[in-house]
Amino acid sequence: MSDVFDKIIDGEIPSYKVYEDDDVLAFLDLTQATPGHTLVVPKKHVANIYEYDDELAARVLGILPKIARAIKASDDKIIGLNIINNNGEAAGQSVFHSHFHLVPRYIDDEFDIPVVDNSEKMTDTIYQERAKKIAAQFEKD
Amino acid sequence: MSDVFDKIIDGEIPSYKVYEDDDVLAFLDLTQATPGHTLVVPKKHVANIYEYDDELAARVLGILPKIARAIKASDDKIIGLNIINNNGEAAGQSVFHSHFHLVPRYIDDEFDIPVVDNSEKMTDTIYQERAKKIAAQFEKD
Repeated sequence: MSDVFDKIIDGEIPSYKVYEDDDVLAFLDLTQATPGHTLVVPKKHVANIYEYDDELAARVLGILPKIARAIKASDDKIIGLNIINNNGEAAGQSVFHSHFHLVPRYIDDEFDIPVVDNSEKMTDTIYQERAKKIAAQFEKD
Repeated sequence: MSDVFDKIIDGEIPSYKVYEDDDVLAFLDLTQATPGHTLVVPKKHVANIYEYDDELAARVLGILPKIARAIKASDDKIIGLNIINNNGEAAGQSVFHSHFHLVPRYIDDEFDIPVVDNSEKMTDTIYQERAKKIAAQFEKD
C-alpha cells in the first residue's frame, strides 16, 4: 500500500519540489510552519528512523547538510534552522514514511521547540543507570 | 578555543556516555527532557549543520538510526522518538558545536513539538516561488 509520500515520489500527487537525487526527494511541507519549511523523504519506503540500514542512512541523512545550506542561502532573512524527525504517533509522526522537517527560522517567527529541563530531579545514580541501559544495547549488535 | 562538547570528547569533563566510535560521541543530555534524552556529537568540531562536508555528514548523521534503535530497545516504555538538530541561536542552539538531540517519548510525557499550520494563508504562487528560490541554490554548487 502506498502512502502520500510514495505518491508524491511517483508523481501521482504534485509537490513543490526543491531537490531530488537517486535517494531522496525534498519538497515544501504544505503547512509551511515557517516560509521554506521543507520535507526530505527517502524514495525507499522506510517507516521510521529504526528501519534505515547503514548504507541508506548514510545516503539519506548524509544529504541533509546540503539541503540545509540551500535553504539558508535562499533567503537572507533566515537566521536559524531546525531539523526535526518524528518517529511514532506519540512523537507527532503523522505520515508513516520516514521524513525530516527542515524549518528555517526568522526574527519573531511562530515556531519554537520547547526546552524541558529535569536536571534538578536527577541524581548521579539515575543518570548512570539510564546510560548503562542504552549502552548495553550496542553489545547485542 | 574548545567548547563544552570538545571537553567532554577529550574527557576533561565527565559525561554519561552511551556510545562512541571514531566519529561520534553519544551521551545523556543533563536536562533529560525525557528519560534517555541523548546527544549525538561529532568529534570533529563543526559549529552547525551547514559545516558538514559530504563524508562527515554520511558518517555522523548516518549513525543516528543505530543509536535510535539502541535507545528504543533500552526501555519498553518508549513509544516514540524525536530527533532534533538546532542551528543558530534563533533556533535554540546553545552550544555551538553541532549536535543531535534524541528524545524518547513516553505516554503522558512532558515534551512536545508544536505543529504550526499556515496552509490557509498560502497560495499556489507563494509555494511555487518559495520552492524555486530554494531549488535555484543547488544550481550554484
